[in-house]
Amino acid sequence: MTTDMYDCWLGYPARPGLPGEVRDTLSRVAVSGGSAVLRTALAELVTGLSALAGTVPVVVPEDCAQPHVLIAAPGSDAAAELSAALGGPGEGEAVMMSALARPGTIVLTGSTQASCLHAVFALFRSLQEGQDIASLHRAERTANGLRVVSHWDNIDGTVERGYAGQSIFFADGEVTRDAGRVRDYARLLASVGVNGVCVNNVNVTHAAARLLTRDHLHRLAGLAAIFRDYGIRLFLSVSFDAPIALSGLPTADPLDEAVAAWWKRQVAEVYAHIPDLGGFQVKADSESRPGPSAYGRSQAEGANVLAAALRPHGGVVLWRAFVYDCWQDWRDRLTDRARACYDAFMPLDGAFAQNVIVQTKLGPMDFQVREPASPLLTALRRTRQAIEVQITQEYTGQQKDLCFLHPQWHEVMSSPAVAGGQATILGEVISGGVVGVANVGDDPSWTGHVLAQANLYAFGRLAWDPGIDPAAVAAEWVSQTFGPAEPVASAVTGMLLGSWRVYENYTAPLGVGWMVTPGSHYGPSIDGYEYSRWGTYHFADREGIGVDRTVKTGTGFTAQYEPGLARVYEDLKSCPDELLLFFHHVPYQHLLKSGKTVIQHIYDSHFEGAQGAERLLATWLSLAGHVDPVRFEQVRARLELQVANAADWRDVVNSYFFRKSGIADERGRRIY
Amino acid sequence: MTTDMYDCWLGYPARPGLPGEVRDTLSRVAVSGGSAVLRTALAELVTGLSALAGTVPVVVPEDCAQPHVLIAAPGSDAAAELSAALGGPGEGEAVMMSALARPGTIVLTGSTQASCLHAVFALFRSLQEGQDIASLHRAERTANGLRVVSHWDNIDGTVERGYAGQSIFFADGEVTRDAGRVRDYARLLASVGVNGVCVNNVNVTHAAARLLTRDHLHRLAGLAAIFRDYGIRLFLSVSFDAPIALSGLPTADPLDEAVAAWWKRQVAEVYAHIPDLGGFQVKADSESRPGPSAYGRSQAEGANVLAAALRPHGGVVLWRAFVYDCWQDWRDRLTDRARACYDAFMPLDGAFAQNVIVQTKLGPMDFQVREPASPLLTALRRTRQAIEVQITQEYTGQQKDLCFLHPQWHEVMSSPAVAGGQATILGEVISGGVVGVANVGDDPSWTGHVLAQANLYAFGRLAWDPGIDPAAVAAEWVSQTFGPAEPVASAVTGMLLGSWRVYENYTAPLGVGWMVTPGSHYGPSIDGYEYSRWGTYHFADREGIGVDRTVKTGTGFTAQYEPGLARVYEDLKSCPDELLLFFHHVPYQHLLKSGKTVIQHIYDSHFEGAQGAERLLATWLSLAGHVDPVRFEQVRARLELQVANAADWRDVVNSYFFRKSGIADERGRRIY
Repeated sequence: MTTDMYDCWLGYPARPGLPGEVRDTLSRVAVSGGSAVLRTALAELVTGLSALAGTVPVVVPEDCAQPHVLIAAPGSDAAAELSAALGGPGEGEAVMMSALARPGTIVLTGSTQASCLHAVFALFRSLQEGQDIASLHRAERTANGLRVVSHWDNIDGTVERGYAGQSIFFADGEVTRDAGRVRDYARLLASVGVNGVCVNNVNVTHAAARLLTRDHLHRLAGLAAIFRDYGIRLFLSVSFDAPIALSGLPTADPLDEAVAAWWKRQVAEVYAHIPDLGGFQVKADSESRPGPSAYGRSQAEGANVLAAALRPHGGVVLWRAFVYDCWQDWRDRLTDRARACYDAFMPLDGAFAQNVIVQTKLGPMDFQVREPASPLLTALRRTRQAIEVQITQEYTGQQKDLCFLHPQWHEVMSSPAVAGGQATILGEVISGGVVGVANVGDDPSWTGHVLAQANLYAFGRLAWDPGIDPAAVAAEWVSQTFGPAEPVASAVTGMLLGSWRVYENYTAPLGVGWMVTPGSHYGPSIDGYEYSRWGTYHFADREGIGVDRTVKTGTGFTAQYEPGLARVYEDLKSCPDELLLFFHHVPYQHLLKSGKTVIQHIYDSHFEGAQGAERLLATWLSLAGHVDPVRFEQVRARLELQVANAADWRDVVNSYFFRKSGIADERGRRIY
Repeated sequence: MTTDMYDCWLGYPARPGLPGEVRDTLSRVAVSGGSAVLRTALAELVTGLSALAGTVPVVVPEDCAQPHVLIAAPGSDAAAELSAALGGPGEGEAVMMSALARPGTIVLTGSTQASCLHAVFALFRSLQEGQDIASLHRAERTANGLRVVSHWDNIDGTVERGYAGQSIFFADGEVTRDAGRVRDYARLLASVGVNGVCVNNVNVTHAAARLLTRDHLHRLAGLAAIFRDYGIRLFLSVSFDAPIALSGLPTADPLDEAVAAWWKRQVAEVYAHIPDLGGFQVKADSESRPGPSAYGRSQAEGANVLAAALRPHGGVVLWRAFVYDCWQDWRDRLTDRARACYDAFMPLDGAFAQNVIVQTKLGPMDFQVREPASPLLTALRRTRQAIEVQITQEYTGQQKDLCFLHPQWHEVMSSPAVAGGQATILGEVISGGVVGVANVGDDPSWTGHVLAQANLYAFGRLAWDPGIDPAAVAAEWVSQTFGPAEPVASAVTGMLLGSWRVYENYTAPLGVGWMVTPGSHYGPSIDGYEYSRWGTYHFADREGIGVDRTVKTGTGFTAQYEPGLARVYEDLKSCPDELLLFFHHVPYQHLLKSGKTVIQHIYDSHFEGAQGAERLLATWLSLAGHVDPVRFEQVRARLELQVANAADWRDVVNSYFFRKSGIADERGRRIY
């Protein structure tokens, strides 16, 4: 209860009641092997056990005869033994833990040095989940080799779409010297299995383009070294026109030999400073960013010139698929932004180099409160692809409003997919990794809202295991953050799990999205984007609302899905209520599967959403005295903001649709 | 035709064809008296005549026997003689010119030193209007002692609501050292009779509050000296909480003796540097600016503490009446921002010190494209009052779109009023002066749009003579700026005079106002302010639109007008079409006096407005070869922007109301 909010889920509230035998085992720790990451693992093991078990463990030799915890390097006898006992090496990364493989010893190991560190944190989770440590014996595997947090941090210290203060990586045009904060951040990321961090904004300014040069590489190398100790590789966002911007080349044409040579030279210089750089992230031909289209080249040709430069060094290109026409004409109802990334990338399937990973946002639009999965995610077959989610709550309350996003991510990850002719889920067919846009800044709580720490935590857990249950993750996070005691544990877990629906209820209805204040994206503005160039419309008139994306009468977007899903979305009768207005334009009197009309659903959900926000606050207030005062007050203040925000949304949305439809609320509630 | 756009209307295109006798008289100039302003007048006379008459005049003694132009100081024999011949001194300022009073001499004089300078420019106007100079014999009088241009310039060099570049007075937190540009500006202002200039923004930042201190007074004194030579007094905007901000006083309570003493001391210091400072302009208790209400004091008590400090030095307080609740709740239809300044100031009529001038915006809202006159303007009887107009085109196209504003100002100045029981017009009952918010910056054309120079010109002419005919002023400006030749003269005059209606046609209809993009105030956003805190609503629903401000069923605002006008506005039958939605909420099918329904008027006026913008461009393009290329291209580019902007407005407004009303355009034109 006295954990500092800066500690997040690494405050390790003491766990009394461990059996004496377990406690004895945990009082001794050993490591086999001597890498930097293993040293980190040992140090973290000592830190965590000291707090959780209540006594500082002693470090013993790895062949110590007394009961102990052993971190076994990959390749060591203990590791090989345990790996065999758990069914062999398998594919991808694995974290292994066992109290049964060697009597009197808890063996922690993994397929890589970093996995050994991840095993330490997995042990802590087991301890905090109250699992029977004496019978621990399992492997946790992931197929996602890349689990990257992407920061939209500018080198002036601001954070694009950041709601938690200034950047922890940059200030005043320079890379930070505050290694302590960066190290604390690396711990948080490693504790949930993240293995990559991209430190600068995908919108690369001219000043930020210089990160690739000697102006900054020395200090970037310092950042990389901190992350390296935690098994995390640094990534950089680069600008496609860097050859022009940095060296005055006359072109950035990817097929120009001088351009290719420039990238090779520049990449070599970067790797001279950061030999394990993960690679580059690129936003090209998107929202006015430079890209290969200026030279009549394809996205693949653009990505491949960077890939060729990175390949000798083991780096990858994270090439964002978020390419669309951001100068759309709202009068033109045939152009559909939702179609854009599939239309741009599908014809290129197979044309990307092996070390290019196409990075696709989870929905076809842009991180709205509800979207279907992007059809591109399951469509590309001969291209490595990563899914990008937004941890920072740009469209989901900006860390003023509570919105635990894991259920949303989970919904998309669980969408139907086909692989090798077999029905499966989307999370299983994404081979290139998971990228999350960071929600972190220099706020004392890291995320501006203590409960938004759960989104960062859940991101790591989801990136490791796309199918993991959000309810379990929420409970884990609450228990690790606030301790296992009631009433806090159940209450906060419930708050998290209900929050997405609450937020959806009081904002844009039935999947139609947007309706936010242009620019800031906080608060309601129903027509804010309706007559603008961004391709984000709801087409509400006095008769009805929604975007007709059917093949039969609309933009034909539904055809981008696998046939089964395409039929579900195409047909008004089978399209799920919560995505109805994403796919169909319907009259306000259209009857939903819920039995309500669309208009009545709008009224009901908005009254419910605002009440839901009030309930979140009431629940939190009921925890007074059970949560430390600093966190209690921060969250209380945020929830009060949310209550006001939700009331605004409720009244603006309901008034807008009442004025437009003229249809009264069946229940006669106050609409302005 | 080769005038530089920097010269504005002082390019003095040569006037061939002057009679030889007149040309001979104009070839000699003399001055009686030796003040700085008279020296300026003589220099301007030489400059202007050199260009207009084509030869540089020689300066001769005032008793020269040959024909000449004499600038006669007030009090000189020639001035006294002419004044008597023109009917005696009269009230207020007078400019006098005569070619008849002294044979062979054109006498220029006035009631003050500055009037003599104004007489020089009046002679130039006569020359450029082609008047018979040999029979010149007239006085021009004004009752408006104060004709002030107010700059919303920040000391960092930016200009609030400025559309013509950076400030000409400030850069990087300092007063400018560019005396040349300031002097050229002083010439422009003096040429149209302006006698005051407030150089800093009414929204006074903490840094700008320091203008009152030795940090800046030395260089401000330099600015004042430049303006002084042109008969113009400097004003400063001050922050009501300056005692706190500058000296750390615990309060700015106007009834606190220490506060009163502080203002006296600070004002004395200012006057030690600028002995003829005009006074202070104050925005208090408005849009989050500090003011007396924080201390439970009235606007009069607030103004009077400053007035007491200024009185010994001859300064006045321009106390803005733009006081309203900018945290209104859109759900509350009873609070009416239009009522606010009358409600706040009427109870204080008579309570203001003699050297306080209440400065009231021309309309009750905020410089919309169409508003009725503010009822406060004719209501205050025992208070000096100035009318504030906006020369900068914040809500009227931002100097991208052409909108000649004099017709709008004229409409308000011509509103019915009662004085001493007699029916008169509003322009006659405003005794405290006219203040115009500047449209000037460091753009090569001063105003960003060459044709927007006409608004600055017209402001000066209107401030001198509130009843002056906009058509005459437009023609004057065109002739002085482009020369008298056709086709330019008629074409540009026509463009100016039609432009307000064109702009109104494609923007907010029938007086309802707003519908602009929040923040920037450029371009359409019909609901942009509809659900916000600013008190600026149109209340459109599927049945109708407009704000009910009647006494019978609405906010009661109409009762703030004189009974005759109140009846006109209160009654739907008598309320003028162009203000209908300002005063009434009506169904879309309501029949206007024009014979059209409201909805059809919306459609028609928006199609017409967009066509009007196209016609403005076509007219301008027809002048190719008749206007110098620099000005031609600048205006062409602006008009092209306007055509695009007007098309946007047309489509967004028409689509919005079609979607809401469901009523088709009678003429079947394309609505999206």
